[in-house]
Amino acid sequence: MREQLRVGVFGASGYTGVELVQLLCSHPAVRVVFATSNAHTNQSVPGTDLHYIPSEAADLSTVDVVFLALPHKASAQYARLAVDAGVKVVDLSADLRLEDPTVYELWYGPHPHPELLPVPYGLPEIHRDRLRGAAVVAAPGCYATATLLGLYPLLQSNGLELTAPIIADAKSGVSGAGRTPTERTHFVEVYGNLTPYNTGRSHRHIAEIEQEINRFGPYGTPLIFTPHLLPVDRGLMVSLYVTPSYNMSVDKVHNLYCNVYADEPLVRVLPPGENATLRHAVRTNTCVISVQPVTDQMVYITSVIDNLRKGASSQAVQCFNLMMGLPETMGLL
Amino acid sequence: MREQLRVGVFGASGYTGVELVQLLCSHPAVRVVFATSNAHTNQSVPGTDLHYIPSEAADLSTVDVVFLALPHKASAQYARLAVDAGVKVVDLSADLRLEDPTVYELWYGPHPHPELLPVPYGLPEIHRDRLRGAAVVAAPGCYATATLLGLYPLLQSNGLELTAPIIADAKSGVSGAGRTPTERTHFVEVYGNLTPYNTGRSHRHIAEIEQEINRFGPYGTPLIFTPHLLPVDRGLMVSLYVTPSYNMSVDKVHNLYCNVYADEPLVRVLPPGENATLRHAVRTNTCVISVQPVTDQMVYITSVIDNLRKGASSQAVQCFNLMMGLPETMGLL
Amino acid sequence: MREQLRVGVFGASGYTGVELVQLLCSHPAVRVVFATSNAHTNQSVPGTDLHYIPSEAADLSTVDVVFLALPHKASAQYARLAVDAGVKVVDLSADLRLEDPTVYELWYGPHPHPELLPVPYGLPEIHRDRLRGAAVVAAPGCYATATLLGLYPLLQSNGLELTAPIIADAKSGVSGAGRTPTERTHFVEVYGNLTPYNTGRSHRHIAEIEQEINRFGPYGTPLIFTPHLLPVDRGLMVSLYVTPSYNMSVDKVHNLYCNVYADEPLVRVLPPGENATLRHAVRTNTCVISVQPVTDQMVYITSVIDNLRKGASSQAVQCFNLMMGLPETMGLL
Amino acid sequence: MREQLRVGVFGASGYTGVELVQLLCSHPAVRVVFATSNAHTNQSVPGTDLHYIPSEAADLSTVDVVFLALPHKASAQYARLAVDAGVKVVDLSADLRLEDPTVYELWYGPHPHPELLPVPYGLPEIHRDRLRGAAVVAAPGCYATATLLGLYPLLQSNGLELTAPIIADAKSGVSGAGRTPTERTHFVEVYGNLTPYNTGRSHRHIAEIEQEINRFGPYGTPLIFTPHLLPVDRGLMVSLYVTPSYNMSVDKVHNLYCNVYADEPLVRVLPPGENATLRHAVRTNTCVISVQPVTDQMVYITSVIDNLRKGASSQAVQCFNLMMGLPETMGLL
Repeated sequence: MREQLRVGVFGASGYTGVELVQLLCSHPAVRVVFATSNAHTNQSVPGTDLHYIPSEAADLSTVDVVFLALPHKASAQYARLAVDAGVKVVDLSADLRLEDPTVYELWYGPHPHPELLPVPYGLPEIHRDRLRGAAVVAAPGCYATATLLGLYPLLQSNGLELTAPIIADAKSGVSGAGRTPTERTHFVEVYGNLTPYNTGRSHRHIAEIEQEINRFGPYGTPLIFTPHLLPVDRGLMVSLYVTPSYNMSVDKVHNLYCNVYADEPLVRVLPPGENATLRHAVRTNTCVISVQPVTDQMVYITSVIDNLRKGASSQAVQCFNLMMGLPETMGLL
Repeated sequence: MREQLRVGVFGASGYTGVELVQLLCSHPAVRVVFATSNAHTNQSVPGTDLHYIPSEAADLSTVDVVFLALPHKASAQYARLAVDAGVKVVDLSADLRLEDPTVYELWYGPHPHPELLPVPYGLPEIHRDRLRGAAVVAAPGCYATATLLGLYPLLQSNGLELTAPIIADAKSGVSGAGRTPTERTHFVEVYGNLTPYNTGRSHRHIAEIEQEINRFGPYGTPLIFTPHLLPVDRGLMVSLYVTPSYNMSVDKVHNLYCNVYADEPLVRVLPPGENATLRHAVRTNTCVISVQPVTDQMVYITSVIDNLRKGASSQAVQCFNLMMGLPETMGLL
Repeated sequence: MREQLRVGVFGASGYTGVELVQLLCSHPAVRVVFATSNAHTNQSVPGTDLHYIPSEAADLSTVDVVFLALPHKASAQYARLAVDAGVKVVDLSADLRLEDPTVYELWYGPHPHPELLPVPYGLPEIHRDRLRGAAVVAAPGCYATATLLGLYPLLQSNGLELTAPIIADAKSGVSGAGRTPTERTHFVEVYGNLTPYNTGRSHRHIAEIEQEINRFGPYGTPLIFTPHLLPVDRGLMVSLYVTPSYNMSVDKVHNLYCNVYADEPLVRVLPPGENATLRHAVRTNTCVISVQPVTDQMVYITSVIDNLRKGASSQAVQCFNLMMGLPETMGLL
Repeated sequence: MREQLRVGVFGASGYTGVELVQLLCSHPAVRVVFATSNAHTNQSVPGTDLHYIPSEAADLSTVDVVFLALPHKASAQYARLAVDAGVKVVDLSADLRLEDPTVYELWYGPHPHPELLPVPYGLPEIHRDRLRGAAVVAAPGCYATATLLGLYPLLQSNGLELTAPIIADAKSGVSGAGRTPTERTHFVEVYGNLTPYNTGRSHRHIAEIEQEINRFGPYGTPLIFTPHLLPVDRGLMVSLYVTPSYNMSVDKVHNLYCNVYADEPLVRVLPPGENATLRHAVRTNTCVISVQPVTDQMVYITSVIDNLRKGASSQAVQCFNLMMGLPETMGLL
C-alpha cells in the first residue's frame, strides 16, 4: 500500500477551506494531519471526522505539505514558516501569485515576504511543467482561472488581435465573497438581485490575469473586467468578447480550443452551438467552455467553473498532485 | 386641505423601518418630520426624499406621533420620553406587548419602564375598540399576528377544544431576522436550505400569542410553536393544526371565518378548496387565510402575511389610523 | 370629474398582460372594459375585480383603446380589426415595431398586415413627439428598451465611435420568457443556474435595436447582443461596453447622460461611482442607468429595468398617456 | 475481479432516473446495459457515457435486474414483463407499494397486475430481512421515506399514544414534482413562494405511510399529512408533531432514536439541541433526524432527506444491494 502524504490546512473554516479539507480527506494518497481555524477551534470540520485546531497549535514538523487558505498577508507569513521548516506549500491566497512585488504593492500594499517570489502560478493547463516537483505554488484566483482558461488557446497561438479590447463580463455566486457575514452577503440584499461590483478595473484579480496574458504578447489595451454578484451560492461564469487576429472564423477558433484542450482532463469544450451554463460546472472540478459566433470580427467565449473547486480547492489539489509526482487528477475524478 | 399629522420614526434603517417610512411618506394625512438611524446618519432613506438623522437629534416637540422600530429595551426608553413629551407612540418592539412585566422579565429580562404597562395590543381585528384614540400602542410581532388572526374566529366563538393542542408550524422569510449581517442570514447559509430554529417553546413571540389566546379561555395545553427560516426574502406562513370543539365540521369552521372577517378590510378568507400561499400576501397589507379539512377532528388553517407589512409596518400604520381617528385603512389600500 | 377612457386588453393572462391590467385598473383616467384570455375564460384577473372573457367576446365598439399583449402574428390581426373599428392601438407584440416589412420577414416570417406599417416606436424618451396623438403605437421589447435607453445619450450626440463594436451583455429574469411552461422555465432547470441563450445575433430584439441605432448614424459593426437567463423572477440588466468618440472621458459621458435624462420622469442616472443593480428597477416603472469607467477608451454602462414594467406594461401605459393627451406619467408614479 | 451485475433502467430521463443512472454508473458491482427514454432517445444521459434507447429496444435478456422509474400503471406492465423474463425488479413507482390491490384502487384506479402483489416494501431500516434476496421490491415514495423513518423508533417500541394524532407538516423541493413542465413548476410561480398542496388527506403517499404505520398497532386517528412546495430544487423535510405514550420524556425519545438507528449506515440522529435542516441531507444518501421537545406531552421530530436520493434513487440502490447479497451501502458511501 502507498505511503500517505501528510498534509495540513491553514484557514480551513472558510467556504474554500472546508471544500479543500473534504477533497483532501477523500484523496487516496493523503492523510490530513490538521485543519486550523482560530474562530472555530474544537468544532468539527463539516463532512469530515476532523476537528479544528488553532493555527498556533499546528506543528509543521508533522506534515509534508501545507495548504494556506488564509487572508492575504497572513498567508505569506505562514508560507515563510513552512518553507523554513522544509514543508511544501500550496498557497490559495493572492500573496504569491504576482511575480513582481512592486505590482503586488499596487494592489495589496507592501509584500510581507518578497524574497519568496517568484513561484510558479498554479494553473496546470498553462504552467504544468513548472508545477511538477515545485516546492511552493500559488493557486490562482477564481476569476483568473475562468478568464485565463477561456483565453489561453487564443493567447498561446498568438491568435488575438493585439489592439482590440478583451472584454470579460464576469458573474460569481456569493460563496466567492467569503464566509464572513457582511451587508453585501446578507440573504435579503442578494435575493432577486444582480450587482456589478469592483467595476472600472478595480478588482484585484486583474493584476494576475494581466500578468499571465502579458506572457503571450504586447497587448495594447488593458483588460476590461467587470464582476457581478449572482443570486446563487456557487458557480462562476466569465463571458468573453474577443477579437481573433486575421479574422479567424469562429469555426477555426472552436477547433483551436478543442485541440488545445483535447488531452486536458479538467477542461471541457462544448460542441458548436451549445452554450456553457453555470450548471455545467457547479460541484465539479472541471472548467467548461463554449465558443460561439457574435459578429464577423468577434467571438463570444463562455468559461464556467465552480468557484470553490476549479476556482480554488480542487485546483489546489491538482497543483499538489503535480508537485508531489502523483497522477494529476488523483482524488479529483 | 387636511392638516397633516407630524410623525417621527426611530430606528428607521432596519427592514421594517424602511418599509414603515415608505408607507408613511405616501400616507395622505402624514408628514414625516424625521427618521433616525445612528448607523446611517445623513444617508437617504431608500425610496424617499428623507435623510437619516441620529436619534439624539430628533426633536420630540416637532411631532405628534412617534413610531419606534428600535431593539427592545431601547424602545421602552424612547416610549418613556415620548409619553413625557405628550407625543403619541406606536411601538413596534416587544417592550409594550406583554401586559404583565413579570412575564416580560421571563423572556426579555427586567422591564425598563413597567409603569408604561399595560397598553392596548395593536391587533385591530381583535382590539379595535381599545385602539381608537389610544395614546400608546404596542404593535404585535409578525409571528403573533399571523398566528392570532389564524386562530381568532375559533377563539372568540369558544370553538376550540380546550384540552387539545394548538400546533403552529411557522415559516418566515429572512427579512424577519433583521438587517444586521450574521452567519444565520448569510446568503450561502440560507440558499437552498430550510432551518427550524428556536424550537421547543423558546421563541419569544410565544409569550404574546399565549397572552392573547388566554383572554378567551383556560387552554389546557401550551401552544406548540415551531418557526422555520425559509429561503425567501419576505413573507410568513403559519400552518395551524387545531381541534374545533363539538367536532365542528370544517365547513362550519370555514363559514365562521368568513363571517368573522366579512367586514375586515385587511383580512381575506379564501374559498373552500383554495390554499393560502406566501404569494397571496407578499407585498400586500393583508392577512390571507385558508381553512381546509385534515381529519374528522382537526382542521388545517393556513395564515399568511408579509412579515414586514401586516406583520410590522402596515399594521403599525393601521393602529396609528385608529389612534388618530383616521379611516383605518388610510394609506394602506 | 374626468370622463374615463374605455380600454380593452387582449392577451391579458400572460405575465405582461396581468401586470398591464393591474396598472390600468389603478389609472385614474381609465376604465378597463374587458380583458381577454381564451385559456382562462371566466377566471378572475389576479389583483383585480375583472374576469377574463374570450377574445371572440370582446366588443371593439365598447372601447376607445386596445392594448394587445398577444403573440406576434395574432397581434397584427387584432390591430387590423381595431384600426378598422376606429379604436386606438398599443401593440406590445413585435408585429409593428419594425418599419420595414422585409426586415420583419427575416426574423418573424411574412408580415400579416404590412399595410399597417410604419407606426411610431413607443420609446417615449426617443420618440415622444411622434407618440403624441398617435393612433397606433408599437411598444418596444424589454431588451430593446434597456439597451436603447442605455445608449441613447451617446447616440443622439453622435458620441459613439462608429467603427467600434457595441457590446451588450444582457441578463433577464424568467418572467421575460412568458408564462407557458417549458423545460427552459422549469424551476429545477433555472434554480442555481445562469444560461446564455439566443447567442450569436439570433435574438429577435436585435432587429428593433439596430433599427433604432441606425437612425443616428452609419454604424460600421453590427450590435453584439448576448442574453442570459437569470435565476430571478423579474428584472433585466444590460451591461454595455462602448467606445465614445474623440476619447470622450467617462466624466463627460456621465454628464451627458445626466443632461439628456435630466427631465425624464422615468429614467434615473445614478451618481458617479454607484452601479445600477437589478433591485434599483424591479417593481418600479423606471429605467436606472449607471456610467462607469473601464479603460481610457471604453465605458461600461449598466441599464436596468423591470422587464414587465418599463420593459412592457408601464411603458405601454406611458405611450397610451401620450397618445391620449394625458400627463405622461399618469398612473405610473 | 468481481463479475458485474447487468442492470437496465426504464424511465431514465426524469430527475429520479438520471440520478439513479449516475449512482449505478459509479457502483463497483454494476454495469448499466441500457437506460430508456422514449422522449430523449439517442440523447446522452447527463453525467454518464450512456445514451437513451426507446423502451421498446430494451432487451430484458441482457440484464439481471431492472429499475423501473416509470409512471404508475406503466411500471406494473414492465414489472410483469421482467418477472416473466426471470429478471429481478426494483420498482420506484407506486404500483407495488400497497399490498392490498383494493387500497391501490382507491388512490390510483384499478391495478394492472394485482397478481404481482404483495412484494417487500423497500425501506431497509424497517424491512431489511424481507429485502435480502427478494426478486421484486417496491421502493417507497419520498414523503413516505422521511415520514416513516421519523416515526419508526416510536412505532416499533409501541411508544406512540394510539389515540393522539400524528401530524406531519411536510415540505419538498420542486424536483419532487417531476420534470414535466407545468404551471405549478414554472420558475416564476415557485420563486419566493411557499405553497400547500394536496391538503386534506389527498396526497397519495398517505396510503403507503398508513399501511406501514398500521403494521405496528391500531392507530385510532388517521395520519395528518400536509405537503408544501418549497422554493428549492431538492430536499425534503417532514416536521412531525407526535405524542409519546406514558408521557415518555423527550430525552427518552431521543435516546430511543439513537439506539434504534445506532447501526444504521444511512440514518443519522443529531445530538440534543441541534435541529435537522434541509442542507444536512441534500446531495447525500442519508436521512437526518432531530428530536426536540415542544411540550410536556408532545415531541417535535424533524426528518430530512434528499428526495431524489434516499427518497428515491439511492434507496433503490440500497434495496438492490440487499436483493443481490451485496454490502448494503455499496456505491452509496
